[in-house]
Amino acid sequence: MCQLLGMNCNVPTDIVFSFTGFATRSGGTDAHNDGWGIAFFEGAGVRHFVDYQAAIASPVAELIRRFPIKSKNVIAHIRKATQGHVALENCHPFVRELWGHYFVFAHNGDLKGFNPELNGPYRPVGNTDSEAAFCYILQELRRQFGDALPALPPLRAAIEKLCAEIATHGTFNMMLSDGSALFAHCSTNLHYIVRQFPFAEAVLCDEDMKVDFSEVTTPSDRVAIIVTEPLTTNETWTQFKTGELKVFIDGMPLP
Amino acid sequence: MCQLLGMNCNVPTDIVFSFTGFATRSGGTDAHNDGWGIAFFEGAGVRHFVDYQAAIASPVAELIRRFPIKSKNVIAHIRKATQGHVALENCHPFVRELWGHYFVFAHNGDLKGFNPELNGPYRPVGNTDSEAAFCYILQELRRQFGDALPALPPLRAAIEKLCAEIATHGTFNMMLSDGSALFAHCSTNLHYIVRQFPFAEAVLCDEDMKVDFSEVTTPSDRVAIIVTEPLTTNETWTQFKTGELKVFIDGMPLP
Repeated sequence: MCQLLGMNCNVPTDIVFSFTGFATRSGGTDAHNDGWGIAFFEGAGVRHFVDYQAAIASPVAELIRRFPIKSKNVIAHIRKATQGHVALENCHPFVRELWGHYFVFAHNGDLKGFNPELNGPYRPVGNTDSEAAFCYILQELRRQFGDALPALPPLRAAIEKLCAEIATHGTFNMMLSDGSALFAHCSTNLHYIVRQFPFAEAVLCDEDMKVDFSEVTTPSDRVAIIVTEPLTTNETWTQFKTGELKVFIDGMPLP
Repeated sequence: MCQLLGMNCNVPTDIVFSFTGFATRSGGTDAHNDGWGIAFFEGAGVRHFVDYQAAIASPVAELIRRFPIKSKNVIAHIRKATQGHVALENCHPFVRELWGHYFVFAHNGDLKGFNPELNGPYRPVGNTDSEAAFCYILQELRRQFGDALPALPPLRAAIEKLCAEIATHGTFNMMLSDGSALFAHCSTNLHYIVRQFPFAEAVLCDEDMKVDFSEVTTPSDRVAIIVTEPLTTNETWTQFKTGELKVFIDGMPLP
């Protein structure tokens, strides 16, 4: 199984702490060693890093661990190949443009007999079920809303419906962001935490590392971390329900 | 003016030597300090790095200089902003998917009054004339050839025609690759060299560095480097003609 990590914040925040614990699971504490990737929104732009080496051995992952890229929306993924061979084009997250916005997508799970009709402008470059699902979502959003980004409530409803449809084919834990909101859908396993004032210390599960967030934040900062398995041992994570889609904006899940 | 660097090879080759000289021009020997970017094809996948810091100061550029990523098609760009503010979404190269292939594009020059009708699926995320030109090219290729990548001769003819049309609006030196071929169009300034057996020593113009390619190659290797201004002092570079489109495959320009 792959693992997913997302971050959504009200101010640009670096993900060094969470990524360090997460990346350790790629070839370190866990057997996710068929590649990894991470995408950071910065304004409308995206920094996109993918690698088919285990994150623990990758010089690109080393850069991410050392270079504090600040972002309000980040999606990361470590891969255990279930469909598609080990290759750069099969590494998540995937990036495509729709309505003049980049969309970033990553998926954990396995879809069986999922062969959507892709007759719009989005075609998979690799051969994963995940990239096909992403192309299908963008195609259907474009078909439904035409030429411009819709308001959030109808967009959320459309994504929720598409996720439910795709999840009938198997496990569909996924994260999707257009740089303003982060959509997270749970089939089997997804947890989140909101860190806000008063900030406290957090201790990573996977690496001997802790950080006192009160030293690196201001009282108005708010950061949501969404991840397959909780990253820290001393914080309370909330588990998603099966079939639940949550939308995170400015570091908070919408009601 | 921005500068462009492209590499097209018959075997995956690293670009560390050429990029080192080229990156020095971003904030070092020249005044191209409004960002930079580089994209490497690896199989069907793309590694894409962009930054709005000068390449000479960028930790991401430092990674590229140290980590020999091997690729058969690379496009790099250093930017002096003429249109569009300094932001990640305005850094070249740009990447989009068409026909299940990633396309990578970078442009040097300035287009005046270029407002193509973008009524297909590609919309600029940033606000440069360059990204608009890229979206227009992909839209028109998709309109002309429908749903699948055409054979090279009609694709080349179509790209040649589109470049000539766009160049009526201003300077349009550009590079475009789908991972198999590298298309380079010259309005004002573009040079290339083909390095092949017997390999010799090359000395960078912009940095006190030389490399003996005979020590790092095999006799069957062939590498074409395409660049705005020649990178080395002791090799003979061929200048493109105005309005010329060249297509490079396996390290050679097609006749």
